[in-house]
Amino acid sequence: MLWYGGDYNPEQWPEDVWTEDMALMRAARVNLVTVGVFSWARLEPSEGVYAFDWLDKVMDLLDDNGIQVNLATPTASPPPWFSLAYPDALPVTPDGVRLTHGSRDTYCVSAPAYRNKARNIAIKLRERYGEHPALAMWHVHNEYGTSCFCDHVAAAFRAWLEVRYGTLDALNEAWATSFWSQHYSDWAQIMPPRATQYLPNPGQRLDFRRFRSDELMSAYIEQRDILRDTGLPITTNFVFGGWVPVDHWRWAREVDLVAIDDYPSQAGRAAAEQSAFAADLARSWAGGKPWVLMEQAAGVIYTGGRMLSKEPGEIERHSLQHVARGSSGVMFFQWRASRGGAEQWHSGMVPHAGADSRIFREVAELGRTLEELPELGRVSADVAILWDYEAWWGLDQPGLPAEGLDYLEAVRQAHRVLWRQGVLTDFAHPSADISGYRVVIVPSLFVISDAAAENLRNYQGTLVVGYLSGVCDAHARVRLGGYPGALRDVLGIRVEEFRPLAEPVTLSNGAEADLWSEVVELHGAEAVVRYPDGSPAITRFENAWYVSTRLGDDAYAAVLAAAGIEGTGEPGVEQVRRDPMTFTIRHP
Amino acid sequence: MLWYGGDYNPEQWPEDVWTEDMALMRAARVNLVTVGVFSWARLEPSEGVYAFDWLDKVMDLLDDNGIQVNLATPTASPPPWFSLAYPDALPVTPDGVRLTHGSRDTYCVSAPAYRNKARNIAIKLRERYGEHPALAMWHVHNEYGTSCFCDHVAAAFRAWLEVRYGTLDALNEAWATSFWSQHYSDWAQIMPPRATQYLPNPGQRLDFRRFRSDELMSAYIEQRDILRDTGLPITTNFVFGGWVPVDHWRWAREVDLVAIDDYPSQAGRAAAEQSAFAADLARSWAGGKPWVLMEQAAGVIYTGGRMLSKEPGEIERHSLQHVARGSSGVMFFQWRASRGGAEQWHSGMVPHAGADSRIFREVAELGRTLEELPELGRVSADVAILWDYEAWWGLDQPGLPAEGLDYLEAVRQAHRVLWRQGVLTDFAHPSADISGYRVVIVPSLFVISDAAAENLRNYQGTLVVGYLSGVCDAHARVRLGGYPGALRDVLGIRVEEFRPLAEPVTLSNGAEADLWSEVVELHGAEAVVRYPDGSPAITRFENAWYVSTRLGDDAYAAVLAAAGIEGTGEPGVEQVRRDPMTFTIRHP
Amino acid sequence: MLWYGGDYNPEQWPEDVWTEDMALMRAARVNLVTVGVFSWARLEPSEGVYAFDWLDKVMDLLDDNGIQVNLATPTASPPPWFSLAYPDALPVTPDGVRLTHGSRDTYCVSAPAYRNKARNIAIKLRERYGEHPALAMWHVHNEYGTSCFCDHVAAAFRAWLEVRYGTLDALNEAWATSFWSQHYSDWAQIMPPRATQYLPNPGQRLDFRRFRSDELMSAYIEQRDILRDTGLPITTNFVFGGWVPVDHWRWAREVDLVAIDDYPSQAGRAAAEQSAFAADLARSWAGGKPWVLMEQAAGVIYTGGRMLSKEPGEIERHSLQHVARGSSGVMFFQWRASRGGAEQWHSGMVPHAGADSRIFREVAELGRTLEELPELGRVSADVAILWDYEAWWGLDQPGLPAEGLDYLEAVRQAHRVLWRQGVLTDFAHPSADISGYRVVIVPSLFVISDAAAENLRNYQGTLVVGYLSGVCDAHARVRLGGYPGALRDVLGIRVEEFRPLAEPVTLSNGAEADLWSEVVELHGAEAVVRYPDGSPAITRFENAWYVSTRLGDDAYAAVLAAAGIEGTGEPGVEQVRRDPMTFTIRHP
Repeated sequence: MLWYGGDYNPEQWPEDVWTEDMALMRAARVNLVTVGVFSWARLEPSEGVYAFDWLDKVMDLLDDNGIQVNLATPTASPPPWFSLAYPDALPVTPDGVRLTHGSRDTYCVSAPAYRNKARNIAIKLRERYGEHPALAMWHVHNEYGTSCFCDHVAAAFRAWLEVRYGTLDALNEAWATSFWSQHYSDWAQIMPPRATQYLPNPGQRLDFRRFRSDELMSAYIEQRDILRDTGLPITTNFVFGGWVPVDHWRWAREVDLVAIDDYPSQAGRAAAEQSAFAADLARSWAGGKPWVLMEQAAGVIYTGGRMLSKEPGEIERHSLQHVARGSSGVMFFQWRASRGGAEQWHSGMVPHAGADSRIFREVAELGRTLEELPELGRVSADVAILWDYEAWWGLDQPGLPAEGLDYLEAVRQAHRVLWRQGVLTDFAHPSADISGYRVVIVPSLFVISDAAAENLRNYQGTLVVGYLSGVCDAHARVRLGGYPGALRDVLGIRVEEFRPLAEPVTLSNGAEADLWSEVVELHGAEAVVRYPDGSPAITRFENAWYVSTRLGDDAYAAVLAAAGIEGTGEPGVEQVRRDPMTFTIRHP
Repeated sequence: MLWYGGDYNPEQWPEDVWTEDMALMRAARVNLVTVGVFSWARLEPSEGVYAFDWLDKVMDLLDDNGIQVNLATPTASPPPWFSLAYPDALPVTPDGVRLTHGSRDTYCVSAPAYRNKARNIAIKLRERYGEHPALAMWHVHNEYGTSCFCDHVAAAFRAWLEVRYGTLDALNEAWATSFWSQHYSDWAQIMPPRATQYLPNPGQRLDFRRFRSDELMSAYIEQRDILRDTGLPITTNFVFGGWVPVDHWRWAREVDLVAIDDYPSQAGRAAAEQSAFAADLARSWAGGKPWVLMEQAAGVIYTGGRMLSKEPGEIERHSLQHVARGSSGVMFFQWRASRGGAEQWHSGMVPHAGADSRIFREVAELGRTLEELPELGRVSADVAILWDYEAWWGLDQPGLPAEGLDYLEAVRQAHRVLWRQGVLTDFAHPSADISGYRVVIVPSLFVISDAAAENLRNYQGTLVVGYLSGVCDAHARVRLGGYPGALRDVLGIRVEEFRPLAEPVTLSNGAEADLWSEVVELHGAEAVVRYPDGSPAITRFENAWYVSTRLGDDAYAAVLAAAGIEGTGEPGVEQVRRDPMTFTIRHP
Repeated sequence: MLWYGGDYNPEQWPEDVWTEDMALMRAARVNLVTVGVFSWARLEPSEGVYAFDWLDKVMDLLDDNGIQVNLATPTASPPPWFSLAYPDALPVTPDGVRLTHGSRDTYCVSAPAYRNKARNIAIKLRERYGEHPALAMWHVHNEYGTSCFCDHVAAAFRAWLEVRYGTLDALNEAWATSFWSQHYSDWAQIMPPRATQYLPNPGQRLDFRRFRSDELMSAYIEQRDILRDTGLPITTNFVFGGWVPVDHWRWAREVDLVAIDDYPSQAGRAAAEQSAFAADLARSWAGGKPWVLMEQAAGVIYTGGRMLSKEPGEIERHSLQHVARGSSGVMFFQWRASRGGAEQWHSGMVPHAGADSRIFREVAELGRTLEELPELGRVSADVAILWDYEAWWGLDQPGLPAEGLDYLEAVRQAHRVLWRQGVLTDFAHPSADISGYRVVIVPSLFVISDAAAENLRNYQGTLVVGYLSGVCDAHARVRLGGYPGALRDVLGIRVEEFRPLAEPVTLSNGAEADLWSEVVELHGAEAVVRYPDGSPAITRFENAWYVSTRLGDDAYAAVLAAAGIEGTGEPGVEQVRRDPMTFTIRHP
């Protein structure tokens, strides 16, 4: 049976609305709701004073109606009283601005006061509801992803670095501090990458991003371990986007099921592509464990300043994309669109117009559709795209070899081109076991560890490597002697120089290339496609292909086809096999 | 007799220039000058030390030359000594940056030290010049419009909120603090909307804008009450623009005459449109009381990074637009263009080139023209456009249903289309008595109070309501059950969903619409124009029209014409009746 | 013999690389390297603890290999320990943000702690290496150009102003503080131009820029005087760009040879133009003293977010441009491209790929080419372009008469047009002796001192003056009575008004003009070209031409040709005479 439901925030509504909620949930076949995500100020209205009565009622009411609860710890948004009592736990920007409450997520995850209060409210919830019959799952926090550059963070960063490097000598070497007189002679001299005079240190920045992910994760683990003995599954919802400072590969190990939020930032088929991308990532992060679509929007969503409406039928299409790709259910944020507050324009399963609305009718119909599906099995793919936060973070730096380098877009292109052809892809970590895949695609893997390079060296299938891969080591230091240092032997080439392109050029196969080019020497490989000056642009060395420039989608698809990766998809018709059925989704 | 003159700042010039000034003023028929606006540092060069001798001379000199004085309190720009003595009275940005003197307006209006010193210098001026024969009017401060987010402001904001809401429960309900755990359990937890982690609270933001207007107004009232017993008219100059944090409807009640500054930001006929807009606003704010154009530029003005020159004849055209629309005079900033300082490129009635210049010749000619006009009466209009700061501020928020929503532009479009046709319009507050108008236009009245909704419900004339009107209550909370909550019955419709447009669409009448659309259900109204999918775009319910999308000027004019509002103006020829004459102004 | 080499940073590499370095340097005919620029943290790893052994080895190794050393004081980048020990010496932005170490140049040049430590390390280097046989030159610091707005700076600024003005009355008059109530009654009230409420004071801003240049220079002079008694030449490398807050005319007097860094920001012939511009500036600053190209990039450089590759042959072409124009040598930053750190993508003479690379081969070939050149003499020109930091800074203000006014571009245009025609130009300070030049070009000399105006008045040759010249005095106050106040008599005109152009216009000679126009009255001059309304646009008064608007390059060249300045250059072929030879450089 698939889960169906969404975030339920009855604290925003008078109790008479709750009664209507139950009737509508039953009508919509809702069987799971996430409760309490942003309820801290209601549960603990002032420090040490608790008010559980309203939540007691809600839990009982849901139980009476046969709806299970995914109970959240409310630690993503401390109440106003917390900020006043512990001003040192308010987050600080790189410029030194200490933020003020008035939104959400306004806390420093390294502040002892925050950690204490967060553990405490988790314990209280565990004590009161751990045995409640409606409780089916724990949802720790919400979308971990804050950042802070205060002194608490500085101290935690130093501690993390001591574990990572052991000695200052090792750190100085890794960060190349001999450049610009940055040599550290005492751990206390190390700071988060706060506002500084000019270009920052790439090693420091990359490690700070690793640290932030681990630091947030340690806060998650603290709460998880408090809830562990109830024996119920524990998760936290992963959110995907450029701003998120966590490494989901590492986090996925610590949750019982992977939960993701999916908010496409484009409309139409591009949104469908984004949904498939998110679902394939989630399945890959889960790596065989269950995963679920924990949040999506029912109607209009606000995305980066622009509002996107879902077209009639689009809710179902996106939802089924996730189910077909392996999701254990379909969940929304949120049940009822808020009347006020910062996200009053974020849509709900029950919109502002009420249940007499197209949106709610589609929500109810989707509930019936899901109920009628058979028991579903696993999903598998024989193509993998390498995906790595460290490569992404490494390319998210000032002072790079070109403006406009975009790791995420390079990965998306590979996925998009194959999605359009109906080829299902997994994502894989560069050091993961990839021996089972027929094809592995490596887009712009700028930072590559020695272990990952060895992994690729041992791989026997078809390898398609994109420009700027293998260039740096795990500390974002250049691998010397010719690019792509870690993969020269694998690809049978040596790149002597990067040659960023000010304007597009036409290659020997008629394709247009832009942004980037490289001066490629052949050391075993053959040139398949050439630059206008006759030098190699795309090379092949046995089963290992190298694309040294940026291509458009069609030209990129042609390279993949030449390497033997080609699907038969009809435009706009998505077909995915999940035993015992094949899902066919038609995107207009 | 009309006033004619401008800001006179003799403190910028040696005394021999003053003599020339008198001769030139007489030649130009100047009869009123505003003196002392930014003279605090000259009047009180160090704390408690006063230097009035120069101003004594200036007042006497003007009196000798038959020129009346509009004497300003200099409180818009405290002297440098003030900032050093009272650093807590320097303003603080939302990011916590405390600004430094070196410009103008660098003070916090809520700081007790500022209030004390401002009252003191007003008292001194009252004592010394209250009976001076040249004195005709008091000009408090200049263009009230600063902002600050410091702790003084926080305290004042809380006090204002306590008066408004009485209880924290009422405030929590109004601000919908149940969303994102923002519930306040103590007044001390409430802050100005300082920099925070993510989207802010719309209710908090809207109330802070209301508070800022009232807080600035209380500073004005303090000074006004000090000057009151001289029996002379008291005003302060209103400035119009997106940055101004005051509600001129409320302020207009507190002045004896409404004074406005008018600096168009476009050139040519667009500038003339803007002048007409400003004058119609001022007349409407005054609501039957006298009003005056207190500042305009004689030549080149600096506007948002771009300098605009007035063409030959344009000074007179703009000036007469104001007179025709009811102004009691024509004033400029400033008499002589400054040699140095921040606004040295702001033009003067006497430019840098001196009196031997086109600009001064036009200024002198305008003086003669005004002198020859007959005694002028009142101006009246039978069309009103609703204009409301709260709707504007409500739409000036992040996280809205679409990017690019622009309250001011929606209002300007209604005014512009009618100005071009020669239809004179008033502006009206949504709760004002509108029964006397034949037609009332309601552009994007996003926030609407219950009283205003009732006002519209009772209105008998023709009503033309634009998209996004009536959507929110006075706390910026959505009115539920279908948009536009407050006006569904008035318009005979129910809007189930908003559907922002990514691209323009063509309506059934051939007009193009963009940015915004709505899913409109008819509940009594008929569809006059339809969207491409056949659903209603423009509806009519007896005399109440609804336009659910954004139209271009011509298409909007066609709707107004269909609703019976149409003029006969010739392009570029503006005709306005002000008894006993009709002004005809030809804009090239 | 010409110097050849670059910055050598062996502290970034293990010692075995040093051995290879020596072999490669010899192969490339390197005879001078700049050592130690960013080595402070290595020389003084913690406060008062010195580590010279590695530098001893480097100096000896270079000496053994016959390579001379340009030894740098490392004061451009204090070590992390310094920031922790002296937090008051970290720089502060105008917004009050105190920056943190983690880049380079993160110090306040006015902080006593910084000055003390900088002097100390200079003394240590002087003591240890002052007599070293490899030592050929001292290189103080690197690219002086930081800024700070802290209280140390405020104090230093006040002291500088007291020297400049003597009395507060003089300062108040110069800054026109009577505008906006800015009158200072105590020196302590004066601040650096920190963040303020609205438009700042132009006089304060201009003086602050003068002060910054002088303040940085005083730090340079302190070190220079410490090194003086070694008898070796002392320099510091000037860097050119909009951000650099120093007046190189004043600095050039204080160095034994002028050294410049040249990093073009455009590609192709535009880069060659920029190189010629930089070289002509350096020669002019040096004013007969030797000068040298101290830094350039060998391959790819990172410029303002965009990476530019040098084409094959371009290293030699740019280098020879400098030599032809008078440089005493050709130096690069840096010898070896860094493996890590902020500038790891800044190219080196030895690139990441190693010596087996096109770049190193070109570097080695250039070494041989330079070695074979004869002893070279002086370079001279008979056309001068006036170039003045004060005019530049004066036009780098908010609140100006038009947006888009660009002093640097106005100067570049004059240089560019003549460069394309093969006319060699000097730059000259407005008060310098210009009597020897046949032609003097004056682009947008917005701020002009009385002395400079007198200098132009006495000049007998052909004068071509551009719009917005002569408008303000040395305090950025407008010269009254008609523009261009200081040059009306020289040009035989009077400008009554500025008329910025919203759109381009076509002049009577068919040329297009944009951005700017003026209402010019003839007072002796004749109109050579007219605006569409028939008023004068370009005038001539004997040998003095005035161009009152902005022209494109071709139209500007036509004016210069009419004034008698015309070359015979073939496009892309640069010919420059430096005795005993003529350099011919072909730019593709």
